[in-house]
Amino acid sequence: MPTSQQDPSTSPSDGDGRGVLLDLDGTLVDSVYQHVLAWYEAFRSHGLHVQAATIHAGIGLGSDRLVPWLVGQVDDPKALSDAHLARFLALADDLTPTPGARELLEDLERRAVPHVIATSSGARTRQALLAALGREDLHVVDASDVTSSKPAPDLLAAAAAELSLPPERLTMVGDAPWDARSARRLGMEAIGVRTGGFTEQVLREAGATWVVAAPRELIGTL
Amino acid sequence: MPTSQQDPSTSPSDGDGRGVLLDLDGTLVDSVYQHVLAWYEAFRSHGLHVQAATIHAGIGLGSDRLVPWLVGQVDDPKALSDAHLARFLALADDLTPTPGARELLEDLERRAVPHVIATSSGARTRQALLAALGREDLHVVDASDVTSSKPAPDLLAAAAAELSLPPERLTMVGDAPWDARSARRLGMEAIGVRTGGFTEQVLREAGATWVVAAPRELIGTL
Repeated sequence: MPTSQQDPSTSPSDGDGRGVLLDLDGTLVDSVYQHVLAWYEAFRSHGLHVQAATIHAGIGLGSDRLVPWLVGQVDDPKALSDAHLARFLALADDLTPTPGARELLEDLERRAVPHVIATSSGARTRQALLAALGREDLHVVDASDVTSSKPAPDLLAAAAAELSLPPERLTMVGDAPWDARSARRLGMEAIGVRTGGFTEQVLREAGATWVVAAPRELIGTL
Repeated sequence: MPTSQQDPSTSPSDGDGRGVLLDLDGTLVDSVYQHVLAWYEAFRSHGLHVQAATIHAGIGLGSDRLVPWLVGQVDDPKALSDAHLARFLALADDLTPTPGARELLEDLERRAVPHVIATSSGARTRQALLAALGREDLHVVDASDVTSSKPAPDLLAAAAAELSLPPERLTMVGDAPWDARSARRLGMEAIGVRTGGFTEQVLREAGATWVVAAPRELIGTL
């Protein structure tokens, strides 16, 4: 039974009747810099020079949105996405969980806090990330479940629906400003983690009300 | 004749009798994310998990300082540096100049503004960076010329000595907070460029009095 199906009524009082949405890519797995470099090289292979720091600012967008956000319309966005995916997967052997990511998931499970992972990553990326996390058993709501990727709120709305909790009783944990923006557009609380290399200021400006260095600091608090 | 040997007395008045020190790695070449990943994988290969975002914050330090800053004392720091170098050079084929880097150099040359490149990178990295810039002819003051790497001011002091200008008539251009700190410790002006993925806030807190997106914005201003 996926964790998302847990009945909130069984939560202990420290769960406070709230649920948690967790971003995967960059939040639970240290993957942002691999994505930046994979996009950098994908653009290069198509004759486009996009600064790595500029790409970094777009990480967290679904790739259907990242490409036009960075370079406008291109002839073959799928070829770019495919080049990125191939390069990312070549770098995926070295992926590691972010500090406390596994322990945070275990904490939520032990305390029966309703939670679900929401990711705009495609199937193969998701698979590599869950393998790095050592949690291929986890249920994930992903981009294939929705029409529009982040920062459109569709993904988080779909994840919220799985938990059967209203937005005001949900907290979104994510490393990218896009996560916080999506959450706030739906009326959820947003917590930022600095594991993606985004600063506290950037995450707060996007709507995060609390910013921590890594998931470890969230254990026992959600 | 290296550009650093130019006589300041020949500068046109818009040079204002000032000189310029330029960082190379991350400032003139888009190389920071490759360094982050190369260090990440070097640490991994030595059984150390250091978050990529944490490594990013150390980029700009000489590698003799970066390793202890990130992980404290290790048995064989040279093995780590070597692993980083090998990985970085494997990624170096895709290095590109930052926007306006080549044009800024040409602008300084055309206007005969005294300038010199100062880098804490080692010889092989420097070579790869100059090749990416298409300027293997450039004279560079590097870590081999000094005892202590950034943020110790030795490197910038050596570069300043080449220009025969006092610190108060020098401007340092760099992408990392460490560049700004080194410059300010010597009494130089510091300009930050956001090409290394450091935010304006981070660069200003380190002492930069002006922050631009890329070298392009500095053409005609130094």
